[in-house]
Amino acid sequence: MPDVVFPLDSTKRFTEQQIVGHNRWHPDIPAAVHVARDSSVRVHCREWFDGAIHDDDSADDIRDAPLSTVHVLSGPIAVEGAKPGDLLVVDILDVGPIPQEDSAPLAGQGWGYTGIFATRNGGGFLTEQFPDAYKAVWDFRGQTATSRHVPGVSFTGIVHPGLMGTAPSHDLLGRWNSREAALIATDPDRVPPLALPPLPQDAILGGLTGEAFTRAAAEAARTAPPRENGGNQDIKNLTKGSRVFYPVYVDGANLSVGDLHFSQGDGEITFCGAIEMGGFIDLHLDVIPGGMDLYGVHENAVFMPGNTDPQHSQWLAFSGTSVTLDGEQRYLDSHLAYQRACLHAIDYLTTFGYTPEQAYMILGAAPIEGRLSGVVDIPNSCATVYLPTAIFDVDIRPSAAGPTRIDPGQGVPRSGF
Amino acid sequence: MPDVVFPLDSTKRFTEQQIVGHNRWHPDIPAAVHVARDSSVRVHCREWFDGAIHDDDSADDIRDAPLSTVHVLSGPIAVEGAKPGDLLVVDILDVGPIPQEDSAPLAGQGWGYTGIFATRNGGGFLTEQFPDAYKAVWDFRGQTATSRHVPGVSFTGIVHPGLMGTAPSHDLLGRWNSREAALIATDPDRVPPLALPPLPQDAILGGLTGEAFTRAAAEAARTAPPRENGGNQDIKNLTKGSRVFYPVYVDGANLSVGDLHFSQGDGEITFCGAIEMGGFIDLHLDVIPGGMDLYGVHENAVFMPGNTDPQHSQWLAFSGTSVTLDGEQRYLDSHLAYQRACLHAIDYLTTFGYTPEQAYMILGAAPIEGRLSGVVDIPNSCATVYLPTAIFDVDIRPSAAGPTRIDPGQGVPRSGF
Amino acid sequence: MPDVVFPLDSTKRFTEQQIVGHNRWHPDIPAAVHVARDSSVRVHCREWFDGAIHDDDSADDIRDAPLSTVHVLSGPIAVEGAKPGDLLVVDILDVGPIPQEDSAPLAGQGWGYTGIFATRNGGGFLTEQFPDAYKAVWDFRGQTATSRHVPGVSFTGIVHPGLMGTAPSHDLLGRWNSREAALIATDPDRVPPLALPPLPQDAILGGLTGEAFTRAAAEAARTAPPRENGGNQDIKNLTKGSRVFYPVYVDGANLSVGDLHFSQGDGEITFCGAIEMGGFIDLHLDVIPGGMDLYGVHENAVFMPGNTDPQHSQWLAFSGTSVTLDGEQRYLDSHLAYQRACLHAIDYLTTFGYTPEQAYMILGAAPIEGRLSGVVDIPNSCATVYLPTAIFDVDIRPSAAGPTRIDPGQGVPRSGF
Amino acid sequence: MPDVVFPLDSTKRFTEQQIVGHNRWHPDIPAAVHVARDSSVRVHCREWFDGAIHDDDSADDIRDAPLSTVHVLSGPIAVEGAKPGDLLVVDILDVGPIPQEDSAPLAGQGWGYTGIFATRNGGGFLTEQFPDAYKAVWDFRGQTATSRHVPGVSFTGIVHPGLMGTAPSHDLLGRWNSREAALIATDPDRVPPLALPPLPQDAILGGLTGEAFTRAAAEAARTAPPRENGGNQDIKNLTKGSRVFYPVYVDGANLSVGDLHFSQGDGEITFCGAIEMGGFIDLHLDVIPGGMDLYGVHENAVFMPGNTDPQHSQWLAFSGTSVTLDGEQRYLDSHLAYQRACLHAIDYLTTFGYTPEQAYMILGAAPIEGRLSGVVDIPNSCATVYLPTAIFDVDIRPSAAGPTRIDPGQGVPRSGF
Repeated sequence: MPDVVFPLDSTKRFTEQQIVGHNRWHPDIPAAVHVARDSSVRVHCREWFDGAIHDDDSADDIRDAPLSTVHVLSGPIAVEGAKPGDLLVVDILDVGPIPQEDSAPLAGQGWGYTGIFATRNGGGFLTEQFPDAYKAVWDFRGQTATSRHVPGVSFTGIVHPGLMGTAPSHDLLGRWNSREAALIATDPDRVPPLALPPLPQDAILGGLTGEAFTRAAAEAARTAPPRENGGNQDIKNLTKGSRVFYPVYVDGANLSVGDLHFSQGDGEITFCGAIEMGGFIDLHLDVIPGGMDLYGVHENAVFMPGNTDPQHSQWLAFSGTSVTLDGEQRYLDSHLAYQRACLHAIDYLTTFGYTPEQAYMILGAAPIEGRLSGVVDIPNSCATVYLPTAIFDVDIRPSAAGPTRIDPGQGVPRSGF
Repeated sequence: MPDVVFPLDSTKRFTEQQIVGHNRWHPDIPAAVHVARDSSVRVHCREWFDGAIHDDDSADDIRDAPLSTVHVLSGPIAVEGAKPGDLLVVDILDVGPIPQEDSAPLAGQGWGYTGIFATRNGGGFLTEQFPDAYKAVWDFRGQTATSRHVPGVSFTGIVHPGLMGTAPSHDLLGRWNSREAALIATDPDRVPPLALPPLPQDAILGGLTGEAFTRAAAEAARTAPPRENGGNQDIKNLTKGSRVFYPVYVDGANLSVGDLHFSQGDGEITFCGAIEMGGFIDLHLDVIPGGMDLYGVHENAVFMPGNTDPQHSQWLAFSGTSVTLDGEQRYLDSHLAYQRACLHAIDYLTTFGYTPEQAYMILGAAPIEGRLSGVVDIPNSCATVYLPTAIFDVDIRPSAAGPTRIDPGQGVPRSGF
Repeated sequence: MPDVVFPLDSTKRFTEQQIVGHNRWHPDIPAAVHVARDSSVRVHCREWFDGAIHDDDSADDIRDAPLSTVHVLSGPIAVEGAKPGDLLVVDILDVGPIPQEDSAPLAGQGWGYTGIFATRNGGGFLTEQFPDAYKAVWDFRGQTATSRHVPGVSFTGIVHPGLMGTAPSHDLLGRWNSREAALIATDPDRVPPLALPPLPQDAILGGLTGEAFTRAAAEAARTAPPRENGGNQDIKNLTKGSRVFYPVYVDGANLSVGDLHFSQGDGEITFCGAIEMGGFIDLHLDVIPGGMDLYGVHENAVFMPGNTDPQHSQWLAFSGTSVTLDGEQRYLDSHLAYQRACLHAIDYLTTFGYTPEQAYMILGAAPIEGRLSGVVDIPNSCATVYLPTAIFDVDIRPSAAGPTRIDPGQGVPRSGF
Repeated sequence: MPDVVFPLDSTKRFTEQQIVGHNRWHPDIPAAVHVARDSSVRVHCREWFDGAIHDDDSADDIRDAPLSTVHVLSGPIAVEGAKPGDLLVVDILDVGPIPQEDSAPLAGQGWGYTGIFATRNGGGFLTEQFPDAYKAVWDFRGQTATSRHVPGVSFTGIVHPGLMGTAPSHDLLGRWNSREAALIATDPDRVPPLALPPLPQDAILGGLTGEAFTRAAAEAARTAPPRENGGNQDIKNLTKGSRVFYPVYVDGANLSVGDLHFSQGDGEITFCGAIEMGGFIDLHLDVIPGGMDLYGVHENAVFMPGNTDPQHSQWLAFSGTSVTLDGEQRYLDSHLAYQRACLHAIDYLTTFGYTPEQAYMILGAAPIEGRLSGVVDIPNSCATVYLPTAIFDVDIRPSAAGPTRIDPGQGVPRSGF
């Protein structure tokens, strides 16, 4: 096991730790850790809400989730000699929940959660159909997840960091802020918002203090979206054994990581999202000098997934097209097509006795696959979502016998405003 | 091998065949074939342009492709006893190029093609970057495809029908026409168009004649888009061994099929698209009575992919977000994110010596995977595209050594207006 | 589809065909076909007993199977320029049952069979436990096999040629005959025999006639065993897409092929064996000059399996060690260990209601995996056999609930002496 | 992470630990740990030679390996309520090298070793060809293994316990001893021996002392072979996520485990063997009451492998038959056939520049597959060994270009007597 360069104590809040990380992107946040090229390190990661979500049967914590505080990230880690124009080579050697802490109140200590944000506090992929807040708690046994809120389902998690990325340059940060501000300006009062502008409130900027903090907090980018530096990509396939190549925009590259997921379906459609947890990640870090020009990679991560993802050989798949539920035809909208495919899957699972919220939770947490199947056949995109049949206790394949109904049990906790 | 219920003679045009199929969707098109439940049948399929595209080194045929003539479909096949509200169960027993005709001028006779339409005649996923017409011809050896226009690449095809579906009811057809007309009306002169309205010119409607033909041709839906009945879904995973469940909207279900592909990447991003060919498909047909209500499947196909798709264990993946090339921020646009991921992959491959058009062709024809990785992280969607490294003769993984350059050879034929 | 260079007419016996193949190995058998390097060819193959086994419910034909007549092989095919010392490169482009003949009395015409030989006529892997003759008939639907004699099981076949190989040189043939004669001499009256000596009776030697025939028939090797030239390797993974490298011992290489299997478990433990059928195989043939020395391959085939074998992700496995059923300890006997593992699997399946013979048939025909797990732990070898759980209609995993019993139906036909 | 019920201190010898395990099988060894049904536990495991093998460049330690001391096992663990006739259900939740100890002198602390025993001290699968002692040291980086002694190879390990099993009953132990003694008696002076009789010297029997120890040590079974109770099965596929079912022969089942491997090829053909290491294993334990009769499982483990084994999609395979190197024909000897297949693979790899010992090490340590391909084709068995091509830095596929030679570097250390 590599040395722990970014330790966390599960009993303390993010800001009280030995090394304080950050929850905004800014080039001025100083590196918290310096490592040599060709090094391996262990990094502890806090669950993205820093312990605000509990292992209980209420969704109030999700309804009231403190969105301004996320994501609490571990880093920045500077790699000796890395320079703008290089590619940072990150091997994910291992990743998992908090080791040796199996039954305790922090997500990652033997359990994790999937939340669906209420429309008025975050929203989500299917927020029109699911306007309230919901929560499902998942228990871990080895690699396997099960939930008292979603019976009849168990699966091998596809563990990965939801968020990893290098620090932006001042120039890049400026471009983010101006283009996102322009978008927000088109509908500034929208609920949920179109994008999240810089927000000094609740900003944590590692070692920055005083005026430098104030200045940076006013312009530091929020961590919700993935951007040129990687960031919150939520790519479920960045599992153990993966190699990721990030563009380097500042000296040292200044890598940060967090938002670990025990599992996730493609899209993280529940937004809050995946199976959220704290834990550890072991990384090997190296550099390809001049790699950005050498390979034409100037933005967004390039990666090679590992070869130990959970394997499934039987899938039930649903397709959707870019027609709204109200019957309006949209033009090649793959986003909408995936929404429709997911809604079809939810409708289908309810014929087996699941509540719609339970079905939605399964799609968010289990390692389902979401594919862009057709993107040119005007006016309809076709997107597809694949469910591994082996994760269900009952046979979910269609047949003349009709669906076998399960007992949905207590269902998933729900909280409205 | 099942009996051939829909035979084609490779030397004759689509309209001169023993049984004439159709190239529009309409409930009045009479079934060309009637089969019992629980039957297996062989159906011959014409390549979608009925032979207009040639095995040569010019892209003029793609530039001038007769878009009003597609897709030439085999069917309708009526299944005895199928009624609206049922689910039609279609097993794809086998599918392949034209058997016993290995070296002849029709696509499917030992070869196939990938085309990129010019913006002024069809357009495509990356039409802003690739405004002209291009063509690549692929040669088949067993399951493997190679192209003189795209050197250094060979792969096991993922053979499938691009288009399969049941006949719409009158009511459903009416909804298609009204919603698509409404979309067109928002920008009727757009090039390429937003959608394709009914077009009597070049309409082929099977056994319909006289007034019935005229009436139907005026309202029959074009076959380009996937819709509630399945249709042109271009799901590359509908390979041999797959089982597909289609909603039934008319008595007999009236299944039609065509647009066979020797291989395709997710999205069929080249539009014309995949590796196009004629060939055969063996289907087993059965019905789940009342299946639509029983399983909550009222539109869009549900399916189970087969278990003999080509396997790959090493992938190089590219990510993209919903920011345009010009730097404009869009809101959760997964379609754009996939465009950007594909453009990143193309940029990358050009550092190995491929022309951009060759790289585009690879993404369109090889069994690449396109995934909706993040769809909630406002304002950016994250889409990813996975290339199997084993299809390349050279090692395409990034390393400090830099890319190994290939000889692009003659490149892909191109034709502008 | 490549040209048919070795055609068969299903209505005629092997010796009455346009080109007559052979059922013994001998260097003097003249090439029946000559092809250039880098060619693709289609070869028809007769089922190994030339039609003696029928689609009925009696095992008399297996009990009385004419062992002296097998295997009826297609070939030899001479490849221009191939010389002793070369490696012959054989790509299996496609392989399947008899095309366009789906319901007829010859195995391969829509059906195939698995037999278990009686001890007194052939024997088999578990002949002490199963001394009589048994037969199961399997029906093909696309890639899938089912049997009225073995209910509750269906699987995607792993189609392959059981036997393929190059002609031996005179020297090599001499070595075969002397070493096998030496083995037989240790127990010449054993039932079943230790090996099969040359047998002029029923010998078919292609174009050889007269004295040349008589001389060759007296020394031509039987085709049962795999040997240096490949031969009857019964490697289930030589499926479509595989590339095989054979040593070349005579000018032209003189490749022959036959004994097609619709499916088989590792070991072909039922001997007669796999799912036997006639059919076709498409091959691409080329040569690596001097390849035997270049790569140190002087005997036995080297191969690369294709990437479209049926995938399974859930297996139930059984282990065995080298202790006999009577409790005698043998020394590192992996053969015995595999017998014990297979017997354990059979015992297990009988608790679900299968007869022992049905369970044995499943292991012989379905794509089970047999592995040499431990070969050094004195005195016990450990062998393991893996059953894909998805091939069974019922859940065969052990649980506190106990096995779900199936209805074994009529069972498998049996015939004793 | 489950509670550690069997802790080890890496700085102390096996007999000096807080809980002392055992290195012989005997029913009288008292349970060291008692757990409830449906519990999860963490167990530390010592590498099988208790630290006698070092991370250096000499094979003297392998040559002089203290064979009488192995395997040092963790256990017995008694499961409450388990009774003879039950099946013990063991889920392998996690397994890996010694956590948090990455660079230290004990195997498992960031490294492991593969040894080949000298014929005079242990021998091995290919001892006639490799009569001396050899050693290769492997370094771990995340899931990946590389070795300074075997350049040009790296692979994802397939981590598993080589040895796990339940305690034998007195009756079962008696049968082991009598049948193995009978085998030894057939050639008592053989080198290496046919089997290993009970040996009081170096016996460690957990909590047994005094006369009870003396009596038990005289009859306790050696741990080398796999037997009815599971034991040293060396099944490489018992990885994380696997579920194993063991027969229960004594009250409490009394499970023991050890001999962890970072990776292994099928057969563990190097004997000492796999990549040996100490580490941890997390197990979930439960019982199927009466399961032995319920499922007909009276001996030898039944198991379901996990679904996260490293995936490979391209293999180069070698076949072998049961003819000795001297040309003697043996009867259906699958053990010999696998030896010949492995020797073919070794010969092949030497044409790429590897020494024979390096090639042998690769087959022992990398996740190669060994299959019983044909077991009935008298007189020859056919066994096959599959090498994943992706583990090699150079392309090892045969082609007209001939092999690319690697630099074998310092080679593997060797020590003779």
